[in-house]
Amino acid sequence: MQVFDLPTAQVYSPEIRFVDIDAAGIVNNATYFNYFEQSRIAFFEPLLGKKWDWNAAGMVVARHEIDYRAPILFNDDVRIVTWIEHIGTKSMTAAYEVYKHWQGTWVLAAQAKTVLVSYNHKEGSPAPWSEEVVEAAKCFGFGRPDF
Amino acid sequence: MQVFDLPTAQVYSPEIRFVDIDAAGIVNNATYFNYFEQSRIAFFEPLLGKKWDWNAAGMVVARHEIDYRAPILFNDDVRIVTWIEHIGTKSMTAAYEVYKHWQGTWVLAAQAKTVLVSYNHKEGSPAPWSEEVVEAAKCFGFGRPDF
Amino acid sequence: MQVFDLPTAQVYSPEIRFVDIDAAGIVNNATYFNYFEQSRIAFFEPLLGKKWDWNAAGMVVARHEIDYRAPILFNDDVRIVTWIEHIGTKSMTAAYEVYKHWQGTWVLAAQAKTVLVSYNHKEGSPAPWSEEVVEAAKCFGFGRPDF
Amino acid sequence: MQVFDLPTAQVYSPEIRFVDIDAAGIVNNATYFNYFEQSRIAFFEPLLGKKWDWNAAGMVVARHEIDYRAPILFNDDVRIVTWIEHIGTKSMTAAYEVYKHWQGTWVLAAQAKTVLVSYNHKEGSPAPWSEEVVEAAKCFGFGRPDF
Repeated sequence: MQVFDLPTAQVYSPEIRFVDIDAAGIVNNATYFNYFEQSRIAFFEPLLGKKWDWNAAGMVVARHEIDYRAPILFNDDVRIVTWIEHIGTKSMTAAYEVYKHWQGTWVLAAQAKTVLVSYNHKEGSPAPWSEEVVEAAKCFGFGRPDF
Repeated sequence: MQVFDLPTAQVYSPEIRFVDIDAAGIVNNATYFNYFEQSRIAFFEPLLGKKWDWNAAGMVVARHEIDYRAPILFNDDVRIVTWIEHIGTKSMTAAYEVYKHWQGTWVLAAQAKTVLVSYNHKEGSPAPWSEEVVEAAKCFGFGRPDF
Repeated sequence: MQVFDLPTAQVYSPEIRFVDIDAAGIVNNATYFNYFEQSRIAFFEPLLGKKWDWNAAGMVVARHEIDYRAPILFNDDVRIVTWIEHIGTKSMTAAYEVYKHWQGTWVLAAQAKTVLVSYNHKEGSPAPWSEEVVEAAKCFGFGRPDF
Repeated sequence: MQVFDLPTAQVYSPEIRFVDIDAAGIVNNATYFNYFEQSRIAFFEPLLGKKWDWNAAGMVVARHEIDYRAPILFNDDVRIVTWIEHIGTKSMTAAYEVYKHWQGTWVLAAQAKTVLVSYNHKEGSPAPWSEEVVEAAKCFGFGRPDF
């Protein structure tokens, strides 16, 4: 686990900005969802390409759940492992584990899941995933990778 | 429901800032958790007083879950109803329903829950809620209010 | 000055969100510009109407300058006075004074100016202000109001 | 200029987060100041060390000015060049040029300056810079580097 021997696309290292820290001196609980947003982009971008239009694509966030285990501080070194739990015709579930380096090891700082829904913005209704998205989601297999 | 005939402390109206809108043209999914943070403060503040030190108090966010039902746009009029589901000795669950005004009525835009844990920052460990917090949590009763 | 005896549109009271506070325990220096953004909207909205499309309108920020005088803390009561310094055919300058309530009086916390440029997004070039915008800018007169 | 042949500490590449984009579809004008905050940290960190306590150090932002030249979009590749204009006993001026890659070249997207003041938080008053800070500020020379 020390090395997170996983494809780059699955291991996102968020920059912890000074402004991400809130009045409690830790990364604000809401900001994790911005890190996850970037994690999903990092996951899909190598497959869909940087020109992929995230709005047109219509990957709408329908649900989040998160369990916080340890706070993240300003200078923490953080890694977020992202994978796809499963994909249906019009939705999929992404999952994340957030690790921080602490006393020479990596400790679990948070675990989370996001349900994404495929949405055709032009028609204003859910729509099946495009083949590209399905291929991208499949790319690393489904479920938590070994690390 | 048109009037949310509830105590002021339970109905928070977030200011939807221009910057809260993201590249998709809607309030970013993470920003809801900042609105909930303010909702909890609005809920407890009349009871605990504006001088209450939220950090010393040690109400730590342990878990969130949210279901998004309808997007929030820049000029939307939004109300968040907050209540306490239940309180234990060292944790409690807050719940929220987010409404937006749309075509003359209020539609449910999101539903969410937060598990809060009592934490003694000096000792670095969970601790029972203070009596003040328990009294405040009890104030409006437990469970979803009628509206 | 205790009362800021000015039209409502010229005195904006930002909500100081918990998340606005940064690792230094004060409102982050960048966040003031979001408050100013809302101040400008509060200034123009009564005149242009809530349906005014800020993007189509093409009020582009070309320049900011700010002097910070006193930090803003989480529970501070803040008022931002906004006025128009002058308006040209394709640009105008807005100015602000930020006050916070402190020890029974209002102290100046910051002073700032913004140069706004009129921009036609369809043509991708600067364009004269619409008459509506000119009327709105003129509404309270030019220069710092007395208070 | 294509290579920004400068020390790493002087060329910061901000991550443009999805949430940094506002309702106008561009990086919000306020967010630049968060990028500058990170630019300053990137500038000083190699010299002062990652354990440097930015709050204790008391580098307080006293003034900003910025001219926006071109908008920054979600997928833009951005570089911020940072230098110290001059340093006094209790203040210093940092300056920045923001570049974005556009049609095979780097275009100037913004120019800005920040006045930083040395502040002793314990005594609640300005104080001379520590020798460490002076050494760090001097490290790359003063004024705009050639590139």
